[in-house]
Formats: sequence, C-alpha cells, structure tokens
Amino acid sequence: MKAIVERIRTEGKNLGSGILKVDSFVNHQLDPALTVEMGQAFARRFAALGVTGITKIITAEVSGIAPALTTAMALGVPAIYARKSRPITMPSGYFRAEAPSHTKGGIVDLIVSPEYLHPDDRVILIDDFLATGLTIDALASLVAECGATLCGIGCIIEKSFEQGRARLAHLNVPIVTLAIVTSMEGDDIVVVNPEEG
Amino acid sequence: MKAIVERIRTEGKNLGSGILKVDSFVNHQLDPALTVEMGQAFARRFAALGVTGITKIITAEVSGIAPALTTAMALGVPAIYARKSRPITMPSGYFRAEAPSHTKGGIVDLIVSPEYLHPDDRVILIDDFLATGLTIDALASLVAECGATLCGIGCIIEKSFEQGRARLAHLNVPIVTLAIVTSMEGDDIVVVNPEEG
Repeated sequence: MKAIVERIRTEGKNLGSGILKVDSFVNHQLDPALTVEMGQAFARRFAALGVTGITKIITAEVSGIAPALTTAMALGVPAIYARKSRPITMPSGYFRAEAPSHTKGGIVDLIVSPEYLHPDDRVILIDDFLATGLTIDALASLVAECGATLCGIGCIIEKSFEQGRARLAHLNVPIVTLAIVTSMEGDDIVVVNPEEG
Repeated sequence: MKAIVERIRTEGKNLGSGILKVDSFVNHQLDPALTVEMGQAFARRFAALGVTGITKIITAEVSGIAPALTTAMALGVPAIYARKSRPITMPSGYFRAEAPSHTKGGIVDLIVSPEYLHPDDRVILIDDFLATGLTIDALASLVAECGATLCGIGCIIEKSFEQGRARLAHLNVPIVTLAIVTSMEGDDIVVVNPEEG
C-alpha cells in the first residue's frame, strides 16, 4: 500500500535490534483515514486471493485493534481482540496461547473467550507487524484449538528479515502484508510495496 | 444511542460489584457498524453542544481504542491511545498519570508521548465506560500537563451510580455518554438513552 510505504519512509525510525518505530500512525497515534484504507486494502487483496466467506477477524490487543476494526468494517463481520490478561468478565474455559513480546520483553498470554469464537467461524488474523511470526502463530493456535477455520493472515508491516513468513508457512493460508521492510541499517530503512512486485 | 441501549438490555450482564459485562460489543468482540455509529454519535452530539475545532482524540488502551478511532474518523483528526506501559519506542520526557483499574485491580500508568500531543491541541477524551471517572481524570491530567485544551469527554456507557460525572465536573467541559445505566440489581439492569431525556 503506497501510503504506508511512504509513511514508513518519512516517519519510520530504526531503533536498533530490529525495532521499527511507527508510533505516529500505528503504535500510539492513529491516522483514521489511513487506518480505514488499510482495512479496505486487506479486504480487497484477500478477495483477489479467493479468500471468501469470512465470519470473524481476530487480533491481539493492543496495536492490532485499529487495523482489525477497519478490516472488520470492510468485510462487515465482527472483530475479536485477544486479551493479554483475563478480565474478570471472562468465563473459565477460555482459549489461551503464549507469545513473546517483541517490544516489551517476556512472554504474554493471548486469551479468547469461547463465547465469541466458534467451530463454524472462518477467520482472518490481523496484526500490526509480521516479524518473527510468533504472535500470529499463537493466535492461529487459538483458532485451531477452537476448531474454527483459519483462512488468511494480514499484517500492516512485514519485516522480512525476521522470517515470519517462513515460520507461518505450515499454516498453509495466504499471508497479506501492506508494506515490506527488507532491511534496516542505521537510518537506511528499505521498504517496498508488495503490490508493485 | 438507541442501538447501544438495546444491546446492553439484551447482552449486558451484571457480574456484581458494579461490573457490567459487555464483552460481546465493547470489551472483547467489536461490532464494526455499531462502533462506527458510536463515533458518528459522539461527533454529532459534541457539535450540537458547540464543541468545535477539535484536533486530537485521546483514549486509554485497550477498550477505548475502537470508539476513539471511529470518533477520529467522524471528525477527521488523529487519535492517540495512552499506553499502560512505556514501549521501548517511546522517548523519555513522556507524560504519565496513574489510574486504578476497574476490572483488573491495582493501579495502571497512562503514558502519552509529547511527540504527538502539543500545547495547541484541542482534545476530546473518549473511553468505553464512565464509572468512577478516575481513568478519564487521569487522561485529563495528561492533557493539562501538556498544556493542550480539553474540550469534551465522551464515553459509551455511563454507570451513573458510580458518580463519575460529579468527579469530572471540575474539568468544566461537556460530558457525552451514549447510554446510561442507572442501576444494576441481579439480572435487572436499568439503562436509559440520554437522548430521550
């Protein structure tokens, strides 16, 4: 997606250790028009790949919520955000998986209630980054545990040098990313638009 | 907002201790059309109250993000979600306030980067619940610390029996809520639409 590639080029900051700062439009501040466009881009590209009949979007709190909501808007289906700790409103018998936190360190839980994710659901996972793929893999395991069908994975920004795409290949579903960062060396962030081949 | 009042009546659950469970459309699963309508309702009602020239929507992660984004969409301005822990992408010199967690217990930090909130900003605060008002009061203190102007407060659901509106009266800005729960006794949740007087 051209607008995201341009925002990464002008606003992205390489903080070292593979951390790309995009707080101005993904991880702290949100540009609503851009975020709506992300959702429309995911919907359009999944449709072009023959991914249809989706009934739920699933993401992980916190930074996945905005693009998951706009993708849900574009597809007209509910979005669920996996919680990182169990709120007192959630019944027992929930689905839980573990994922490492890329920006905070440590391991976080991802928790989804069986009240809203069902075996007949057809799911697209949405998140902000595709880096190591471990968070997405954890979300995919929740979908599998529930017996729902995983149909696609969409992330705003792929850091291809962290090999997440290879890690997720076993899931055997289309992976759509809107901008691909192929390398970061000092101030030199190389980012390409996957739709321009 | 009629649709929210109806959803609370059909899907809301009183879990005791003042906790209203609305995980099916606010705190775990999101209905995108309803969430868009929430943002439009906030924009319309603030405009009717003469609240204009807004430049930023501010909320607290996690459950405020969705209504903050759709309000930002309706007003065409950026949204900022205050973080509960400082990500490694955030520079020092941030604004920090403390608020108690209603559903998780303990005290949480609310952190906003000075990179995105400026003294000339005119701010509406958006959150899911107006209960005790302590979270909103903490967000308001961040706005004051920055020197920006607080212009309004919007929450999806007001639990009027927790007196948040009185606590926030000192801020002297309009408070808009879309549904007001006046009492919860067992399965009897009394909810009114503030637009129906």
